[in-house]
Amino acid sequence: MAETSKWRIAVDGMGGDQAPAEIVAGAVEAAHHFPDVEIQLYGDESALRDHMPADLPTNLAVVHAPEKITSEDEPVKAIRQKKGSSMVMAARAVKSGQADAMLSAGNSGALLSSGLLIVGRMKGIERPAFMAALPNLSQPGDNWLLIDSGANSESKAKHLFQYAQMGQAYAEQVQGKSFARVALLNNGAEASKGTEVLKAAHQALSQNQAINFTGNIEARDVLSGQADVVVADGFTGNAVLKSIEGTASQVMKVVTDALKNGNLSTKLGGLLIKKQLKDTLKSMDYNQVGGALLFGVKAPVIKCHGTANAKNIFYAIQQAIQVLDVEVVPELATRFAEDFKREKAAQSEQDKGE
Amino acid sequence: MAETSKWRIAVDGMGGDQAPAEIVAGAVEAAHHFPDVEIQLYGDESALRDHMPADLPTNLAVVHAPEKITSEDEPVKAIRQKKGSSMVMAARAVKSGQADAMLSAGNSGALLSSGLLIVGRMKGIERPAFMAALPNLSQPGDNWLLIDSGANSESKAKHLFQYAQMGQAYAEQVQGKSFARVALLNNGAEASKGTEVLKAAHQALSQNQAINFTGNIEARDVLSGQADVVVADGFTGNAVLKSIEGTASQVMKVVTDALKNGNLSTKLGGLLIKKQLKDTLKSMDYNQVGGALLFGVKAPVIKCHGTANAKNIFYAIQQAIQVLDVEVVPELATRFAEDFKREKAAQSEQDKGE
Repeated sequence: MAETSKWRIAVDGMGGDQAPAEIVAGAVEAAHHFPDVEIQLYGDESALRDHMPADLPTNLAVVHAPEKITSEDEPVKAIRQKKGSSMVMAARAVKSGQADAMLSAGNSGALLSSGLLIVGRMKGIERPAFMAALPNLSQPGDNWLLIDSGANSESKAKHLFQYAQMGQAYAEQVQGKSFARVALLNNGAEASKGTEVLKAAHQALSQNQAINFTGNIEARDVLSGQADVVVADGFTGNAVLKSIEGTASQVMKVVTDALKNGNLSTKLGGLLIKKQLKDTLKSMDYNQVGGALLFGVKAPVIKCHGTANAKNIFYAIQQAIQVLDVEVVPELATRFAEDFKREKAAQSEQDKGE
Repeated sequence: MAETSKWRIAVDGMGGDQAPAEIVAGAVEAAHHFPDVEIQLYGDESALRDHMPADLPTNLAVVHAPEKITSEDEPVKAIRQKKGSSMVMAARAVKSGQADAMLSAGNSGALLSSGLLIVGRMKGIERPAFMAALPNLSQPGDNWLLIDSGANSESKAKHLFQYAQMGQAYAEQVQGKSFARVALLNNGAEASKGTEVLKAAHQALSQNQAINFTGNIEARDVLSGQADVVVADGFTGNAVLKSIEGTASQVMKVVTDALKNGNLSTKLGGLLIKKQLKDTLKSMDYNQVGGALLFGVKAPVIKCHGTANAKNIFYAIQQAIQVLDVEVVPELATRFAEDFKREKAAQSEQDKGE
């Protein structure tokens, strides 16, 4: 065993468009690459074994799960009724302490419900949020964080404030950024912009010395890396995430189509720049940096893209290990529990005074 | 005078990053191109004349405005205090019937306030909305409409329903689409997705036979032309608009930088495809189709991009003429006034019954 701790990662082998083949391949690769980490693969045993090599790494465990949650399943109902599903079993392994983290490329709503109802919220956190890492297109290799990227359709100012705390902790502890810049997604730079919730969040963030709050950021500026953490309500965050995804892929498609359908010199030019274009596309692939972390639950729960392939699964497992290594989740849990206790005490003092 | 009606378009000559030079140039070009339309250019007379050719078209009128609203001005205050500003004078010309439509590339908030407070809302419309036309990247030359692209930070279901009516009327009457497909921007396809407001709007749109409602649309799909009209609350619509803008320009920058900084063959390839790339960029430039129309006020008010150049101003003037030609604004005003009367009557019947 190396100096690092040994972690156990529960992987939903049946979730996602390319399951189980690509999930198995990613898990096997991760097991080879991280010999001191145990990878637990949940799913239909015979389906999983069909995609496994003969010489299985000893740190890869297969756990049979007779059921499967599909993308059509209604999330909460699925979690309650399909107790033998790969996703629910992986979540229960985390809950019972048999695993330290879990990941899935399956039904996002069901994964969110697994996090909230099985793994459980941290004390003091009302609304766990999804946090996605996206590329800073001005500086290859750098990423910025979008939180909430889609867990909640409505948020209060207090939730947004907690997203900022979680995002900052991740940027500093997992990504190693010092005094990460935190911005609030809004429709204008001025403090007076946006909804009442955003105005209140802006004020709370401005007044807190522990947060390096740089003010509002507009959606057109997020990709150029002006902030390390972009805080948004989950509805807008999700819309922005999907706009970015859709626009990047559509624009690249227009460019590559233009090259394909152009005249001879355009085609020749296209051939010459093909490799460069490919590298460009790769630098924009945010799956390379893992999945969306469900932040605010008691252990790391990672949502991989529905289209995740082996490489994405590998990166998401690597991300889970990084999050576990720096112990950011237990540290935040302690901090939020203390904040909660302090608020409760202040509230009770106030009640007495009245 | 040709068969078309003669319209008078009030142009704010002092608004925008490139004012007055580019605004004047665009107005002059439009005056030449549309000899039966009067272009009224509002602004500091000597500043405007500095950029004018000696042989001014006779259908271009200069109206001196001693003041100017800047991008730093607080919108409502500016409208109230700077009565001699080019923007307010243009809006008052519309209000008094001296002009039929107005456009400005200046302070968006102030233009919105000019529309609401000077030009005035249509009867029965609580929340006028900005409507922007964006490119369908799957079909060059086609556009889809985003309404509200940023006038209101919060919307009720009834407002969203009216945006759908306005968007559909524009798509059918101005763009000539028959039975335009209307979709609701949401974070999932199912009717049960999103906030309570979105669920209520979904239900109202589904139940109305006059609207070709195709259900929810996610932000990742808007650019591929799956809907002709995308209805959104102004906060999300604005975030999506700016995400698309920002992503498209950042991705194109990454591509062109990659070509510039590549090796010799990449550079050669880049040279060969330069023209094609330029055409591609052009097809994505939504300024080509005019500006954002403030819909729900008594006359066409068009917001041009802050960076608008002469060509953009020309297209926005052309757009104003098209909107006036089909008489979509008075027609909608009549329709909304009737709806309003009917609702009032129903309400009063109900009150009597109680």
